[in-house]
Amino acid sequence: MTAAFSCPVFLPSTFSYNGNRYHGRIKIKINATSSTKVKTLNEIAGAGKGSSSLATSTEIGHLSQEQIRQRIPTKKQLVDPYRQGLIIERGVGYRQTVVVRSYEVGPYKTATLESLLNLFQETALNHVWMSGLLSNGFGATHGMVRNNLIWVVSRMQVQVDHYPIWGEVLEIDTWVGASGKNGMRRDWLIRSQATGITYARATSTWVMMNEKTRRLSKMPEEVRDEISPWFIDKRAISEDVPEKIVKLDDNARYVNSDLKPKRSDLDMNHHVNNVKYVRWMLETIPDKFLGSHQLSGIVLEYRRECGSSDRVQSLCQPDEDETLTNGVEQSLHKNMILTPGIMEGNGYLGPLDVKSYGYTHLLQIKGDSKNEEIVRGRTRWRKKLSTLPNSS
Amino acid sequence: MTAAFSCPVFLPSTFSYNGNRYHGRIKIKINATSSTKVKTLNEIAGAGKGSSSLATSTEIGHLSQEQIRQRIPTKKQLVDPYRQGLIIERGVGYRQTVVVRSYEVGPYKTATLESLLNLFQETALNHVWMSGLLSNGFGATHGMVRNNLIWVVSRMQVQVDHYPIWGEVLEIDTWVGASGKNGMRRDWLIRSQATGITYARATSTWVMMNEKTRRLSKMPEEVRDEISPWFIDKRAISEDVPEKIVKLDDNARYVNSDLKPKRSDLDMNHHVNNVKYVRWMLETIPDKFLGSHQLSGIVLEYRRECGSSDRVQSLCQPDEDETLTNGVEQSLHKNMILTPGIMEGNGYLGPLDVKSYGYTHLLQIKGDSKNEEIVRGRTRWRKKLSTLPNSS
Repeated sequence: MTAAFSCPVFLPSTFSYNGNRYHGRIKIKINATSSTKVKTLNEIAGAGKGSSSLATSTEIGHLSQEQIRQRIPTKKQLVDPYRQGLIIERGVGYRQTVVVRSYEVGPYKTATLESLLNLFQETALNHVWMSGLLSNGFGATHGMVRNNLIWVVSRMQVQVDHYPIWGEVLEIDTWVGASGKNGMRRDWLIRSQATGITYARATSTWVMMNEKTRRLSKMPEEVRDEISPWFIDKRAISEDVPEKIVKLDDNARYVNSDLKPKRSDLDMNHHVNNVKYVRWMLETIPDKFLGSHQLSGIVLEYRRECGSSDRVQSLCQPDEDETLTNGVEQSLHKNMILTPGIMEGNGYLGPLDVKSYGYTHLLQIKGDSKNEEIVRGRTRWRKKLSTLPNSS
Repeated sequence: MTAAFSCPVFLPSTFSYNGNRYHGRIKIKINATSSTKVKTLNEIAGAGKGSSSLATSTEIGHLSQEQIRQRIPTKKQLVDPYRQGLIIERGVGYRQTVVVRSYEVGPYKTATLESLLNLFQETALNHVWMSGLLSNGFGATHGMVRNNLIWVVSRMQVQVDHYPIWGEVLEIDTWVGASGKNGMRRDWLIRSQATGITYARATSTWVMMNEKTRRLSKMPEEVRDEISPWFIDKRAISEDVPEKIVKLDDNARYVNSDLKPKRSDLDMNHHVNNVKYVRWMLETIPDKFLGSHQLSGIVLEYRRECGSSDRVQSLCQPDEDETLTNGVEQSLHKNMILTPGIMEGNGYLGPLDVKSYGYTHLLQIKGDSKNEEIVRGRTRWRKKLSTLPNSS
């Protein structure tokens, strides 16, 4: 129901809702109060005194100006013509049509993984936007704001079968479901609008955190009543037993130290953006491998957030045993739900045709006494066709 | 008529079309030939042999698959429903409605300069897309492809009066005009869709380069016949005498050395993206200044392109004499064209209300014997309102 990708939380596999203090360093309120709204508008107006048209037209009032400019719906909308969004799935799923933009593609004119992650965040927020439940925060509902709750993501998994190309029209479906008693799952499917072929799937897990105490929170009845009518029992990626990601240590093959978040890496919550994490992870893999392989899947397990003053270390380790990797990859493929594309024979022809390579990742903050994990990751890769022998 | 921002050219104020060899290092053809198309599609199909639905449905043929996925128009279109684009201005201007996405805003929920630059590139390319003139390259027309010509940008200027906020609906107008005998100007205006207030203006200058000889080229009659019907004699920014940007040397106040382009910084031409240049420039300014000021304008003069193996140095120097800076800034404001927003009193109240601060920038490649300029820049800044005394 949200997309605060930038605000991950420490989430052990079993955790207590009492006393599990979150180590975050959020510097501004995520759910804007009246005073932060005014401050934001001052920022927006921007120019020196009297030089800004927005600053001088005071008769409208600051708060309503932001409302006029954003126009967040207060009631459920079925169609959003500006975002090309549509409520589907008996009124609770969301579909948005997007065109792959020129700056969202990389050297091969194909959309980058970062662009896909950005589109996941965008469509998730637009889904909440359409629901009429969006408060002024980053995906929080009215009930969450009343309870000082924000969303934090604990896990994200993406599988990319085909990368969209520049100018291609895509349909992105997203929906939410229950995840245990107090969590929420959000899934995505990206399809070609022209052919209907599924290009990518993703799933994520979310929990709630009290913004003031920084502790994980149970989902209040009030919030459950808001969001549970939107739950759909359908999965983009069916995985019986989530693969456990081992924790790397200083013996990891590749280490990139002293990574420093820059001003341009911070999002509207003043946090290092989730996409930046992925960039740090992938940049630690040797260039030669990146040049000859294409990412087919990624799993991220978030442990804690990263502030703007932290120094980050990125570690990664290639799998030694390719056979093992392929076994895991194949079992993942077998467990995928049957989408129309697969059923029509457009999908995977068999386990023997899949050759994949795996990397394990860790981002951590180097501390004086001990290191603190930010996120663990697993990436899977396939060889680019043009580097295979006998490729056309 | 295009937006190859990533492919700047060395362009002295007077230059010879003969013998002025361009020092670029383009690694792939920008205007795809049949063979590069196939290679690109192999990249797109991506997965190992037989594991990709796109790779296996060979009956359609590779070339037509890319065409099906991109659907570049071969005739002029008046409306593009997917991009929300529209041909305006008696059939030759282009207007696109866009919504500011969640990942396009920074810490204050306002769109970043990088996002605006990206939207300029995107709308320029979509303008060519709609014209029916787009070949498969990065904004090149059919006549340009026949003559092995590509676009290179020599100058770019942006003025931002107000930064759009997350979720705001914008109208971006873009059009082209003549620039001398052999050049082209492309301008942009960004307006609030809700209020009609102009938020930002931009102008850019383009010339043609022979892709094979790397030399600047006159505009062939064939190409002039294609694009001149699209020329409009209107300017987003009226500037009588373009400010000359001085070249910084090693005495510059702030220097950031050993900047290295990363894989994720390369665009579909395998060049360092224009936006990355701006990021390198701005990151060299001290954090304290960036935290209390907002960029109001930028001018970029491109000298040569930057390849993926270059080591880049970013220099910048604040203006010593604020009075002088303000004088220049004010003359710029006085020369701006009268847009509806300004005429209705929504604009600048007078020179005395504008306090701006200037920085001069230089990006260069550190060579063994000498340095090579990539781009010179000038940025202008205003204090953020919230940091002023007595601000609300």
